[in-house]
Amino acid sequence: MPQPVAVDAMGGDHGPAETVGGAVTATREHGVPVVLVGRAGEIRRELARHGAVGEVGVVHAEDVVPMAERGAGAVSTAASAISATSSLGVACQLVRQGTVSALVSAGSTGAVVSCAIRGIGRAPNVLRPALAIALPTTAGATVLIDAGATSDPTPEMVAQFALLGASYARLVLGVADPSVGLLSIGSEPGKGNRLTRRAGELLPALPLRFHGNVEGHDVLAGTTDVVVTDGFTGNVVLKNVEGSVRATLSLVARTGAATPEALREVARRYDPETHGGAALLGLTGTVVVAHGASRAATIARACAVARDLADGGVTDRVGDHLAVEPVI
Amino acid sequence: MPQPVAVDAMGGDHGPAETVGGAVTATREHGVPVVLVGRAGEIRRELARHGAVGEVGVVHAEDVVPMAERGAGAVSTAASAISATSSLGVACQLVRQGTVSALVSAGSTGAVVSCAIRGIGRAPNVLRPALAIALPTTAGATVLIDAGATSDPTPEMVAQFALLGASYARLVLGVADPSVGLLSIGSEPGKGNRLTRRAGELLPALPLRFHGNVEGHDVLAGTTDVVVTDGFTGNVVLKNVEGSVRATLSLVARTGAATPEALREVARRYDPETHGGAALLGLTGTVVVAHGASRAATIARACAVARDLADGGVTDRVGDHLAVEPVI
Repeated sequence: MPQPVAVDAMGGDHGPAETVGGAVTATREHGVPVVLVGRAGEIRRELARHGAVGEVGVVHAEDVVPMAERGAGAVSTAASAISATSSLGVACQLVRQGTVSALVSAGSTGAVVSCAIRGIGRAPNVLRPALAIALPTTAGATVLIDAGATSDPTPEMVAQFALLGASYARLVLGVADPSVGLLSIGSEPGKGNRLTRRAGELLPALPLRFHGNVEGHDVLAGTTDVVVTDGFTGNVVLKNVEGSVRATLSLVARTGAATPEALREVARRYDPETHGGAALLGLTGTVVVAHGASRAATIARACAVARDLADGGVTDRVGDHLAVEPVI
Repeated sequence: MPQPVAVDAMGGDHGPAETVGGAVTATREHGVPVVLVGRAGEIRRELARHGAVGEVGVVHAEDVVPMAERGAGAVSTAASAISATSSLGVACQLVRQGTVSALVSAGSTGAVVSCAIRGIGRAPNVLRPALAIALPTTAGATVLIDAGATSDPTPEMVAQFALLGASYARLVLGVADPSVGLLSIGSEPGKGNRLTRRAGELLPALPLRFHGNVEGHDVLAGTTDVVVTDGFTGNVVLKNVEGSVRATLSLVARTGAATPEALREVARRYDPETHGGAALLGLTGTVVVAHGASRAATIARACAVARDLADGGVTDRVGDHLAVEPVI
């Protein structure tokens, strides 16, 4: 019996109404054992609706982390506000104790990141965790890492993010030998700010296929399988992609020369609900952050991704190759 | 007789074939006096084609800066490679001497920025120059500053960029009291990396309408008239917008449900050729960087913008309000 995945039942815009359905689908259709963490009464009521009482484990947690905060980067401020008896806090403890292999939450990214760092802890030799997300490109997908976990990394941390991102591309996208591009402002080595110039010196020495620098327009062009950057730039880029796609579709719609169906099809591709969760990599357990608006099907997919990441030992492999000097 | 604008005749993908035509149009249609700087023989041949010999001034410069480098951010590496006898070097000297009020170049952004910083020099009290560009939004336009001149600014420099950007929005977009958003990764004050957190403390004290933090998706949504950031993030965002618009249109085209005309109309809006030049603000003279692919009409528009910026004293106004301590 494989270890279960914990689902933060109270997280997300829809709470147990969708998270419980997602856990049931994950169990029944993806074969992922799940433990739901949150207010046991509410969870059992939802399980009964699905005729699934007893099929999915339940761990009670009294408190709920408010969804006030949707953005990433709240690492320094939000952590103290998250109680250890919240669904998120209890779920992190289950990961730390090894009772579950991974955590899925549709709670606020900032809250999940800060709670996971403090509640679960970093994997050996990993300096800081990073958030990886697979963005659809015209050709396939590109992993953007760090999409918002660590705002002010050192160059050594960025080099580790590249290793984590390459592992993620292998495990989730199935790319055997992923190429990694360093996001900068010129394609030649040495172009960039202080952080990227130094990171660009470290990356060629690591056991990954380093492409060199890439630029802002390369992210959706699929120039490389992985685009590595700091969590500030990565989060700005992630949201800029979403906003730019939305603005472009709105301008096309305004011309009246495209069918609403065509626009909806493209919009769906970039809907965070469709492209699923972001993985917080570099902790002793796997954490997948699903979008706040996630419905049951997305939660179920996030559970399957979390199980695959945990099974694949994405963090272990990074630890094997930590050629960089730990500086903190 | 107002002071003329210098045009780097040798800059851009098409060189004198387009820059000279642009200078002629600027003179005849926009009433902007122009001095063309570059190889006098080539320039006169082009002027003759337009029947404009004697209408536009010519200053000879023997050397040409190679167009090898298209990206921004080459400040530290490219400057030494630009000879003082190049068209760019000579044009910068004309600005410094006060012979011309402004410089327009379609040369590589990196080369223009580094040459202008060293050849023209900073305006009084300005710590570092910044590149401002007006991006079309669904509602109108947003000024993105710094789009790539200063990769590692201090928080004080970012605060100055905000003042420069607000002046630019007033002069170029005609917005009486432009709102300014600080690009970050969460809308609440205190969200962001070290640089934006500190800049966010400085901005409310400045004489501008500070909106607070904005995020990546706000850039094209027109949430504020000005979006201020460091030159690294700004350049990544600028190119990410271009790439995201392109990718979205390509995906819509693939559905076959939109007419090519509709897509071309939106593509044109985000074509750097259409939205014109970026202004390098904070120097003792005005510098407008036109896109490398610029044709004559774009060069002419850039000359008019350069004249307006010089007349408007965008840099003088910033100097009036330098409430920040010069740290360098």
